[in-house]
Amino acid sequence: MKKPTPAIDQIESVADNGLLHRRAFLKTGAVLASAGTFMSAQAAPPEVDSWSLVPGRSPEAYGERSDFESGVVRAAGFNPVATGAGASRTPLADLEGIITPGALHFERHHNGIPTINPSEHRLLIHGLVDRPLIFDLESLSRYPQVSRIQFLECSGNSAALNAPQAATTATVQGLHGLVSCSEWTGVPLSILLDEAGVQTQGRWVLAEGADSALMTRSIPLSKIMDDAIVAIYQNGERLRPGNGYPMRLFLPGWEGNMSVKWLRRLKVTTAPTFTRDETSHYTDLQRDGSAKIFTFPMDVKSVITSPSGEQSMRGPGLYQISGIAWTGAGRIRRVEVSADGGRTWGEAELDGVVLSKALTRFRMPWRWNGGPAILQSRAIDETGAVQPTRVALMNDRGPQHGYHYHAIQSWQVNENGEVHNVYA
Amino acid sequence: MKKPTPAIDQIESVADNGLLHRRAFLKTGAVLASAGTFMSAQAAPPEVDSWSLVPGRSPEAYGERSDFESGVVRAAGFNPVATGAGASRTPLADLEGIITPGALHFERHHNGIPTINPSEHRLLIHGLVDRPLIFDLESLSRYPQVSRIQFLECSGNSAALNAPQAATTATVQGLHGLVSCSEWTGVPLSILLDEAGVQTQGRWVLAEGADSALMTRSIPLSKIMDDAIVAIYQNGERLRPGNGYPMRLFLPGWEGNMSVKWLRRLKVTTAPTFTRDETSHYTDLQRDGSAKIFTFPMDVKSVITSPSGEQSMRGPGLYQISGIAWTGAGRIRRVEVSADGGRTWGEAELDGVVLSKALTRFRMPWRWNGGPAILQSRAIDETGAVQPTRVALMNDRGPQHGYHYHAIQSWQVNENGEVHNVYA
Repeated sequence: MKKPTPAIDQIESVADNGLLHRRAFLKTGAVLASAGTFMSAQAAPPEVDSWSLVPGRSPEAYGERSDFESGVVRAAGFNPVATGAGASRTPLADLEGIITPGALHFERHHNGIPTINPSEHRLLIHGLVDRPLIFDLESLSRYPQVSRIQFLECSGNSAALNAPQAATTATVQGLHGLVSCSEWTGVPLSILLDEAGVQTQGRWVLAEGADSALMTRSIPLSKIMDDAIVAIYQNGERLRPGNGYPMRLFLPGWEGNMSVKWLRRLKVTTAPTFTRDETSHYTDLQRDGSAKIFTFPMDVKSVITSPSGEQSMRGPGLYQISGIAWTGAGRIRRVEVSADGGRTWGEAELDGVVLSKALTRFRMPWRWNGGPAILQSRAIDETGAVQPTRVALMNDRGPQHGYHYHAIQSWQVNENGEVHNVYA
Repeated sequence: MKKPTPAIDQIESVADNGLLHRRAFLKTGAVLASAGTFMSAQAAPPEVDSWSLVPGRSPEAYGERSDFESGVVRAAGFNPVATGAGASRTPLADLEGIITPGALHFERHHNGIPTINPSEHRLLIHGLVDRPLIFDLESLSRYPQVSRIQFLECSGNSAALNAPQAATTATVQGLHGLVSCSEWTGVPLSILLDEAGVQTQGRWVLAEGADSALMTRSIPLSKIMDDAIVAIYQNGERLRPGNGYPMRLFLPGWEGNMSVKWLRRLKVTTAPTFTRDETSHYTDLQRDGSAKIFTFPMDVKSVITSPSGEQSMRGPGLYQISGIAWTGAGRIRRVEVSADGGRTWGEAELDGVVLSKALTRFRMPWRWNGGPAILQSRAIDETGAVQPTRVALMNDRGPQHGYHYHAIQSWQVNENGEVHNVYA
């Protein structure tokens, strides 16, 4: 006689409104299913399906997705007048884990994607150096390389949430889709700059891209020598064109636009260059009308990707709350989840190996009772920084601030199981 | 006055024939370039390239690679008579890091790729269980999930190296391309079987796929309850059709064919079922004519992917030796590299965070002097298991053995810089 298996409503809660202990299922062998969660069981094998009765096809040389997944795409908004100016957003609600496939990585362009012949592309390192250097892709590839799984986020991600009224039909893709995570492989810039020989008065580096906007940003030399790379591979293969093919700067944990794509030039300077791209854009307007410049690291942040805006729940029962957390400061230490709008919190499970400056996947089981709920997540990083509420962020910075929005996201679940963006 | 920078020929060696200390460059700021490694430098910015003078294009909804990368594809060999029976191999020489893009993951099919409507697919758990269960994709997705970066290798990988004569025009893709590594996300089978309630006499599980070969394998219950998952995502997105869409079994570290794709049925049994797929295939022929069955874990193994078979070196100077190592037993502890056919060895740098049952990238700088060289890598895993030489493996098992070949790979570099597969 086996011991009786507990039902879902006997599982220990960790916070109000149905949040369950993250390891409950692994410990108890609980019966998770409630009515309608899965189908009536049979003891005999199911009928053989139609697709099992005909030979299958051979694989492509470069594989395609299932046609049934063709709806999983980036959402793009591009300026109809200024060619290639705009952004395309990662479909976060459809993804799991921490890797973003190259085809779905977010993109933000000022003047579109250039078509670059990799054998003709060059990278110049010059300015305050003893030995100016020019690299082509082949010569660059002969230097030591490193691979790191790290996130990239546009500093304008989530900026729509500065609006005074909550957009009620917004998705997690539309609100927060300017963040992605890849394995980036490239050459540490410390090696290249050591070889060029930085002169003692060198303190900053100007980075220039080869798009027709000639995107340029000033970067402190200390960051360049710390963990910056010239990336040439993304998720194992060469960079995608929209992510800087054949080479890009990559600055782990810093606002995405500084990781200059199609990198063609690095110039060592004594001071910032104050380029158009760092004066007209990417500064943070303060309440007194002044603008803060050079706010580089991305803040501690998280968002629940499932359930999320414009999804529908299929009746009461067990669900998995799943989301992503990240911080430019290093590792995520903890993520807490609330199902009652922040009144009570439970600690979520962090999945896998928590990597520095990477997305971290968190999950928590949730027994939805069919009543109203407000789902939130709150990330805490290894420096102790805590993701703020929207009210706290607005009080601190004001709605004119714009960039670097990183407040707690609230998803409201109503009695029909519809999920909407709210301010709570 | 800055201290002089050492030239490449002053860098400390760690083994004969030019193997350099793995951290030499990070410590010394050595001048890596020799004649021809990179171009003559200029102090002025390069001319603006033609692609910087025209607006770029907007991104696709589902992004494409650069046309310049269209040659990076899987190499396929499929039986012209038996539809969909064959394999397609990952282009390891063109990849870096540890993630294999979904489009380039190896595939091995017995009867091709079925086209499955995910809303009609079902998974049955039955046999010696208290509560037989049927899941559709939606109900399965409501259970707790985990994500893990783990390799998958066909037990027939590298089997061509059993041949008595070395194939001299073989590539690393052709020889070893039946191994790949992805982030797999799915539901731990321990949760599903706990809910079904395995009866006390249950010891094995029969897994059945929905391809037209109805691929079936017997799996010890202990593995199922340890770390097996029903995978539904691969590198963030849904499984690719060739990797089991919409769901597959995934058995970390075990021979690939057991991770049954298009999983439709798990039956708990008292003993192995001795299916066609585990008696006519996937057994290891011994010298006495008997066959060993159920040799599940993949052995400790490594291979240098660059330089590798049929590549050409562009004259003496600095190169990066780069390769992958893996073991079904857990983590790679150490990889050693030789440039003189195994006479002397140096320890390679293991890149990033070394993950259990994942590919591990290793690298070592190499100063090629233009003379003959034989490059080898040797992996040691956390259990202390050491990758054997080809001679030792052949002496131990005999050439009739076939599956689970995991000996040290030798790449011969001749004076023209041509790289070929050899037995050494």
